Parts: sequence; structure tokens; C-alpha cells
Amino acid sequence: MRAVVLLSGGLDSATVLAIAKSEGFEITALSIDYGQRHREELAAAERVAKAFGVADHRILRLDLRTIGGSALTSDDVPVPKDSLSATDIPVTYVPARNTVLLALALGLAEVTGAFDIWFGANALDYSGYPDCRPAFVEAFEKLANVATKAAADGEHKFRVQAPLMHLTKAEIIKRGVELGVDYALTHSCYDPLDGKACARCDSCLLRKRGFAEAGVVDPTLYARAG
Amino acid sequence: MRAVVLLSGGLDSATVLAIAKSEGFEITALSIDYGQRHREELAAAERVAKAFGVADHRILRLDLRTIGGSALTSDDVPVPKDSLSATDIPVTYVPARNTVLLALALGLAEVTGAFDIWFGANALDYSGYPDCRPAFVEAFEKLANVATKAAADGEHKFRVQAPLMHLTKAEIIKRGVELGVDYALTHSCYDPLDGKACARCDSCLLRKRGFAEAGVVDPTLYARAG
Repeated sequence: MRAVVLLSGGLDSATVLAIAKSEGFEITALSIDYGQRHREELAAAERVAKAFGVADHRILRLDLRTIGGSALTSDDVPVPKDSLSATDIPVTYVPARNTVLLALALGLAEVTGAFDIWFGANALDYSGYPDCRPAFVEAFEKLANVATKAAADGEHKFRVQAPLMHLTKAEIIKRGVELGVDYALTHSCYDPLDGKACARCDSCLLRKRGFAEAGVVDPTLYARAG
Repeated sequence: MRAVVLLSGGLDSATVLAIAKSEGFEITALSIDYGQRHREELAAAERVAKAFGVADHRILRLDLRTIGGSALTSDDVPVPKDSLSATDIPVTYVPARNTVLLALALGLAEVTGAFDIWFGANALDYSGYPDCRPAFVEAFEKLANVATKAAADGEHKFRVQAPLMHLTKAEIIKRGVELGVDYALTHSCYDPLDGKACARCDSCLLRKRGFAEAGVVDPTLYARAG
């Protein structure tokens, strides 16, 4: 039973990989080099894939800077700091990113004969991102089942698995620790400096809070004392 | 009123651009350099965008060869010739291609403030492609309206416009001629040789038949007498 796992190299997707692996799937991991500021992510994805013995890990280059519109893909938009309380959709939102990532995972699933696509969408910590909600996942699953040659025969159905959807960051970390995830291999920071996490962007703030709430020692190297 | 038009450089998308333009849209054209064999397509897209005075034409690089699985993106799979009568989904089908293309167009639409996405899906000539059917377009439109920040406020709705859906190739050509499309600028061949169309791949066969049925002189340079 094959699956495609979207592996960013962050805490969430590493946990998703561990969950998919624990359910017995043979895994093709897909990481996207989309021109993100935080390129350390891709090195983390390689470390995580290796740690879980993933034989087929593909890194696909897609230059989302041609589209722009996000702090993560444009040098003109600074990454916000110390602002986790904001309720609006943050500027780190990458337009249609999860739609694009799932579309690419769907193509890879067709080619590899997988019908399960796993990704780390989370409706709690990222409530501001429209493409991290259950309604989005359901809509994509419906699309996948009309969009593809693989599903056209009606015998197979694509499933989009988002096992973190309703978990808090602390719950995600606890689940990962149970499954043997070494979070020191992962990378979350949107704006790292010399390979160290900034400790102040949304992603760092969520990560730090998650480890604290889970009662797990945070193995992250931060650029300043958290 | 802004729109994003997916512009491959082929006959169909050139016609779609002409239709969108005739309806008064201010256009951002998006072409994808996806590692296709027929790279002449991208030069054609530039010619067509220029001919229609499109000020914002973006070419986005996305290496679908990392995924593979199609005669158009893999050197290992030959382009079939003289085989238009086949009823199966052809090997030139690129896994999840239109899902990927529309996802990228959706991201660009968000960034440019467009709510209309135009593309050249056609259910008649490409009946073997699952992602060229009305059900696919409807499913993507639904997805777009839950996936994006732009639609999250509920005030705007994305529309995916596929004006060629039910037209024959001959009807498409007649419509384009009315709207001033110079088809000599476009490129359809999947497997060109020295810039000339092969005259034998599915795309060439459909194009030739279309011009013949429309009673319009085919301006294409073919590698051999058609």
C-alpha cells in the first residue's frame, strides 16, 4: 500500500510521516523547493526522510517567486515577528499553496500508484489559513477523484489524510515522540539566521509554545534565548 | 476587471485569450515551463501574449520531470504517432496537469486581485483526459472558493472559465479567426523537429483536421507534407 507524504521538513510533516509509516504505508515523500526564504527546511526534509528510511524522496523545484504575494516567497515582504495574537490571515500565507502542493502530490500519487496523500494541515494553530481547514481537504479529495486517470475507472478512490487537523501543537509533539520522531532534525522557522531559528516568527512561537505545553524539551537551536 | 489566462502557446489557449480579451478583461497570462518536450510552445506563448498586448505575462518554472509518467515529460516514453483513433487515455496525459496548472493560476489570481481564471479545457477533442471535463472544472471552482484568502470573506467568487469546453476544433478555429487570432503564432505539436510540427502526433492530427473542417488555411509549418 503506497502513499505520498508531503514533507516540508517542519515539525508537523515529520509527525505525519511517522503516522503514515506506523500505519504500514510504503512512502514516497515529496518536498517542494518553492523559493522559500527558509531553505533550511529542505535540508531538514532530507534528514527526516533518511531517519524514517524513506527510499523515494523527491524534491521538486517550483518557483513560486514568479507569483509572489507572501512574506515567504518575496524579499519585499518582511516576516512578522512577535505577532502571534493577530487574527487576520498572516502575510506568511502563500497564495493557494496547499492547493498547489496537493495537486503536485496527486500527480506523484498517480505515477507511483498511491491513493493516499498525507499532509500536515492543522485547523487550530493555523486557523487564519483558509487552505488548512477540513472544508478545503474535503473539496480537494472530491477534485482528486474526478481529475485523474487513476480514479477514472471508479475502482479506486483518493484519500487526503490530514491526521493533525484537530490536534494542538502540544498533542502533535506528544504523538510524534511516541512514534520516535527526533524533532532536532526538523526545522520550523520562517526566517532563520545562520541556520538558527529566530524564535520570534509565528512558526517559532507556535513551536516553542507546543514543546512547553507538551512538557517535552525543545531541541531547537534558537538565535537568542527564548 | 482582471483575469488570469493559462496560456500554453497552443491553438486553444490563444483562442481563450482572445475571448477573455473580447469580454473586456485586463489579463495576466500564465505559462508554465514544466519541462515539456515541445519547448517551442513557450516561445509561441510569448508571441501570442505580445500580439494581444498582454502587459503581464509570467512564465513559471516547474519541473514536472521530477514526477514523470507522461510522454510529454519523460524521455523514456515516446510520443505516439498516427494513433488518434485510440480510445484509452493517451500516454501524453500528464498526471494531474490541469489540477496543477489551475492551482498555480489560482495563486496568481489571488495576488493580482483576479477572480476569473480562463483555460482551454475541451471535452470533445480530449475526451480521454479526465481533467478536461466539466465535472473537473466544477470541482476545481468549488475548491478555489474554499481554498483562498481572497474568497474567504464570501464577497467574491472565483469563476473558472472554460469557453472551449463543448466546441469542436473547427469551431474553436472559426471563433479565433473572428477574434483576430493569428494561428501562425501558435504551436501545437508534441514532438517538433527543428521548429517544425511533426504532423503525426495527436495534437498535430487534431489541428490539421480542425483547419480542414473549418475551411481555414492551416498556417502551420509541417516537417512533411500533410
